Amino acid sequence: MKLCLLPLFLFCFLSSSSSHPHPFDPLTPSELSTIRSIITSSHLNVSSSLSFHYVGLDDPDKSTILSWSSSSPLPPRRAFAILRADRQTHELIIDITKASIISHHIYPGPAYPSFNNEEEAQAGLLPMNYKPFLESVRKRGAKIEDVVCTSYARGWFGEEKQNRRRAAVLCFVAGETANFYARPIEGVTITVDLDDMEIVEYRDRVVLSVPAAEGTEYMAARQRSPFGPRGNRVVVVQPEGKGFSIHGHMIRWANWDFHLAFDLRAGAVISLASINDTSATMAGRKSVLYRGFVSELFIPYMDPCEEWYFKTYMDAGEYGFGLLASPLEPTVDCPPNAEFMDGYYAAQNGETLRISNVFCIFERYAGDPSWRHTETLLPGEIITESREEVSLVVRMVSTVGNYDYMIDWEFKTTGTIKVSAGLTGILALKASTHTHTNQINTDEHGELVGRNTIAVYHDHFVTFHLDLDVAGPANSFVKANLKTVRSNSAHPTPRKSYWTVVRETAKTEADARIQLGSTASELLIVNNGVRTALGNAAGYRLVGSNAAATSLLSDDDYPQIRAAYTKKQLWVTPYNREEKWAAGLYADQSRGDDNLAQWSMRNRSIENTDIVLWYTVGFHHIPSQEDFPLMPMLTGGFELRPFNFFERNPLINTEPFNKVLSAQSTTQTSKMAQV
Amino acid sequence: MKLCLLPLFLFCFLSSSSSHPHPFDPLTPSELSTIRSIITSSHLNVSSSLSFHYVGLDDPDKSTILSWSSSSPLPPRRAFAILRADRQTHELIIDITKASIISHHIYPGPAYPSFNNEEEAQAGLLPMNYKPFLESVRKRGAKIEDVVCTSYARGWFGEEKQNRRRAAVLCFVAGETANFYARPIEGVTITVDLDDMEIVEYRDRVVLSVPAAEGTEYMAARQRSPFGPRGNRVVVVQPEGKGFSIHGHMIRWANWDFHLAFDLRAGAVISLASINDTSATMAGRKSVLYRGFVSELFIPYMDPCEEWYFKTYMDAGEYGFGLLASPLEPTVDCPPNAEFMDGYYAAQNGETLRISNVFCIFERYAGDPSWRHTETLLPGEIITESREEVSLVVRMVSTVGNYDYMIDWEFKTTGTIKVSAGLTGILALKASTHTHTNQINTDEHGELVGRNTIAVYHDHFVTFHLDLDVAGPANSFVKANLKTVRSNSAHPTPRKSYWTVVRETAKTEADARIQLGSTASELLIVNNGVRTALGNAAGYRLVGSNAAATSLLSDDDYPQIRAAYTKKQLWVTPYNREEKWAAGLYADQSRGDDNLAQWSMRNRSIENTDIVLWYTVGFHHIPSQEDFPLMPMLTGGFELRPFNFFERNPLINTEPFNKVLSAQSTTQTSKMAQV
Repeated sequence: MKLCLLPLFLFCFLSSSSSHPHPFDPLTPSELSTIRSIITSSHLNVSSSLSFHYVGLDDPDKSTILSWSSSSPLPPRRAFAILRADRQTHELIIDITKASIISHHIYPGPAYPSFNNEEEAQAGLLPMNYKPFLESVRKRGAKIEDVVCTSYARGWFGEEKQNRRRAAVLCFVAGETANFYARPIEGVTITVDLDDMEIVEYRDRVVLSVPAAEGTEYMAARQRSPFGPRGNRVVVVQPEGKGFSIHGHMIRWANWDFHLAFDLRAGAVISLASINDTSATMAGRKSVLYRGFVSELFIPYMDPCEEWYFKTYMDAGEYGFGLLASPLEPTVDCPPNAEFMDGYYAAQNGETLRISNVFCIFERYAGDPSWRHTETLLPGEIITESREEVSLVVRMVSTVGNYDYMIDWEFKTTGTIKVSAGLTGILALKASTHTHTNQINTDEHGELVGRNTIAVYHDHFVTFHLDLDVAGPANSFVKANLKTVRSNSAHPTPRKSYWTVVRETAKTEADARIQLGSTASELLIVNNGVRTALGNAAGYRLVGSNAAATSLLSDDDYPQIRAAYTKKQLWVTPYNREEKWAAGLYADQSRGDDNLAQWSMRNRSIENTDIVLWYTVGFHHIPSQEDFPLMPMLTGGFELRPFNFFERNPLINTEPFNKVLSAQSTTQTSKMAQV
Repeated sequence: MKLCLLPLFLFCFLSSSSSHPHPFDPLTPSELSTIRSIITSSHLNVSSSLSFHYVGLDDPDKSTILSWSSSSPLPPRRAFAILRADRQTHELIIDITKASIISHHIYPGPAYPSFNNEEEAQAGLLPMNYKPFLESVRKRGAKIEDVVCTSYARGWFGEEKQNRRRAAVLCFVAGETANFYARPIEGVTITVDLDDMEIVEYRDRVVLSVPAAEGTEYMAARQRSPFGPRGNRVVVVQPEGKGFSIHGHMIRWANWDFHLAFDLRAGAVISLASINDTSATMAGRKSVLYRGFVSELFIPYMDPCEEWYFKTYMDAGEYGFGLLASPLEPTVDCPPNAEFMDGYYAAQNGETLRISNVFCIFERYAGDPSWRHTETLLPGEIITESREEVSLVVRMVSTVGNYDYMIDWEFKTTGTIKVSAGLTGILALKASTHTHTNQINTDEHGELVGRNTIAVYHDHFVTFHLDLDVAGPANSFVKANLKTVRSNSAHPTPRKSYWTVVRETAKTEADARIQLGSTASELLIVNNGVRTALGNAAGYRLVGSNAAATSLLSDDDYPQIRAAYTKKQLWVTPYNREEKWAAGLYADQSRGDDNLAQWSMRNRSIENTDIVLWYTVGFHHIPSQEDFPLMPMLTGGFELRPFNFFERNPLINTEPFNKVLSAQSTTQTSKMAQV
């Protein structure tokens, strides 16, 4: 431990964070170290079973944050910690400055905190010395030294409360391929108790051969010709350097300001995103997003068999979406002009670990204009005006076992925030006897994507917590419904029909449980107290994408009860400091008593108050062979677009980024040349 | 005319097109010149009213194209021409090589060919000397020398057949702004006869002031501080040069080959897009898209008043989507690494005009990976493999009066074709007495976006003709429907439900009129005769986007009758050489007798045959102040993604574009560093 102190202190001294402290800054390595000391010297450490599951910032009250300025002292730094000790779940609030535990609560269940990496690794080693498993491996013709195991959440399927942190351990064979996920040990069910760290159930139901390694490798060094397509290099350079600046965790670029923090559960947390409006009538900095982050993921697989039915994962609440963040690889995960930021968290024993390059931040220019127009009707001149679109992207990747999720927060100078969830990595694959589709005559619950390999049908639901504060906290949610009107004799017209807009303000939560696409509507978040000079309420529009799947499971099915909110893409709740995690604070073995759908049932008022949007990006995935052995990125998301937030297009009086254009617009006199 | 011969011949000599001729090449300047000679020396030229409306390649038969190779002689070069002469519409087929008219047909109506630019310009001048109009301008406090007028299609609203090419002329005031569209002369209706080129109806119904010029300007040179947001330059460079090659009109890049041609009506036409598959089992070049292009646009406005009800435009069939293409501006409309191509067309008098830079072609790198994975579970190594996504974009912009449409065809090395329609430019604006929303108490059919300025509600429907030939012409359309299954006692499981896939092959056209989102389905185009080694039929998936609006007009409304196909996003028809234009060959004043919906009513067989998909990208547009005075790009589109077209992810054995990665993947041993 002593050896670690030096680099830690060095870091604190060098970190730019210390010179620009913000109440939303994530816990620093020094703070994490203090927290560990406080906890390990408390009575909780009498047991050898003390295990850290979550340590993060205990958010200051919203009123505290909103009244804080960089010239004020920081509000007290507090941490929220979830620990296991003596088969109990402990919730602590710690005052870091005072080095004291200010509250201690035991959560009685039925659910459990997220796994930590160390117990996942330990659980993965349990089968290695478990005789029945060695026999199962032998029967499948594999070598135990090639086997890799790891633990997975088992969900809840109506069992009585047992106070056992049960988890599944799934095993695979690596050997001649890095892609062991393509080589599952199928037919075996291993259940462990994570507190006791022992195998509590074992069954080898059906022996299936392990699929061959051939064709599964994805490592560049091991590829052989004929090689796949490639072109020439395309490189991004910034002759004047990066256009954004990072002050501690505050990022400034163009008209945007926002705070970026790392959280073990959510990953990237965007806070206090605001825009500097330079227009004469609405000039000043206006808030857009108080906080935005991935609240939960839900990935149900569609194979009801004994070894697969429970695979209905909640990647944030069960595993820690931030904990599983992957260090981003410069020039490939992010372009050459990216800047990187590290993340810190408390390991199982409370020690501080760093994930280097947990975020990257870069300016994106994809070659597109953000607006343009050619005017040919004015006598004697052809006008062409066009402005390049450059945006700022904040990226993280979380690798939850086989799958890699790429979450992008893209800030545009138009005021739009575009949020994307990209899915890549390796599918969950099931060993099969089939080598050709003509052998298949029953429902295999997936598609044959490789020899002896079924990629099982599944969904991905990525739920975002979006605490919008559009020009301030008092917002309303408005459905602008498009309604067809039949013309009538009171207003004679040759037209028989047209559509108009009927605005409907949601009064309570029930009015704002939205199934997209069921009616033609635009969804607005407006601040009726802040209006443009023309009288329009300052607003933002939520725009979905093709990735708008909702869950097809039955309402009474256990996984669906736990993730009931995935039946609608959108929910709106009044701001409540406790409502951060869509599947509940404790997701492992949860029973649906603490989730977004439950909260919404209280049907609280959501009009002209501080509201939170919960938007779920959803994918149904019917795999194809292109998804094997590793799938191309599949991206979906949503946009938050200003809607009367500005007096006019904020980019009209922006000069072109790359070129001063206008000089030539008056010289050309015809767009067509005679040949 | 003699003066023009030299540059024309020079072009032919220099053009790479001549050395790589292809049967799909657009008509060359030399061919256009020949066609003009043939027509002007024919009996059609006896009338002074001869007017060219369309000249384009008369496509060779599909069988001719499919059996053609670059070592074969070109099939006979033929042109299709639409002319007006003596108040009649003439259709000619011309054999260019033999310099002869091989067919001449008079189309009796009721509809009319698209306008040409010259008559639009002439019609726009008619009001300038029309006394009642001068009086209307005076009443509105404007100066006639600032007025700009142009012609618009009037549609059809149940009128009897009149044999009159009626068009509306709309007028605006420029003056201190280039943005005259923001300053309409409201309340006036001017109807012209385009054949007689005279005003046939005039009415000044209601005098509304012309909105002020202030705040409407978009030209960079005329902007004043405070300026809008900007950052540092982001520049794309290609150290080894461009990675694609252009041989005549064939473009080759990475695993893609395709032909790009310009057409006066469609704009960009992509033909014969095929992929080189390097996999061992399916090696070779496989066809994907025989032809793809914008077939029609439909933009109905939602104001039923006398001056607005008829505004239900069909931008390809009424105006020529290619004819109105704007020369692309290097470094802003397209990035610095773009290459450009010109387009040629016949003007009203048949002479050849060039649109320079009508297309740009560039390699896009937006900073994203196309696939990635981090593996932490293998003992002693952390693997990170990631590949940059570089794609090839073909772009054109068509400026149809106020609006600018940007059409991108993006080819990805994964095999995906992503097609985007971007909307920018200036909204259709209506003068109003209102300066504040609190003055509005009736339906204004739009939103107040500027002082005295209503942006009228409208839709954009961009319909694509997609003649897919997935691994050959014999294709079927399959709906892969996701169906929830309740578990039952025959297969006991703790799960109560799951979804599975029920495939339904469309037998006839009626089975393939698709409203997206009504059920959870994936839409596939498969070739049952070409299968992977695993037995899956080679296929492609059609994936929509959020821009999936369908028309809300009543079925019996005249504009809807004309564009009946806009009630569904997707139609599938058997290939028919005559069925190219979704709203019919003649769109101006059409009556819905010749359109996609009508063709589909024949309910032909579409199973295991050559089929064409028609996909409509749709937007409902409720404007906001950000759309004024010129709107930020709003983009929608669709993707065609391979689905068992490859044996596996074709990028697995592709090396990283920008960096050889793998060397370091074995050196790092932990993704987390202890602090």
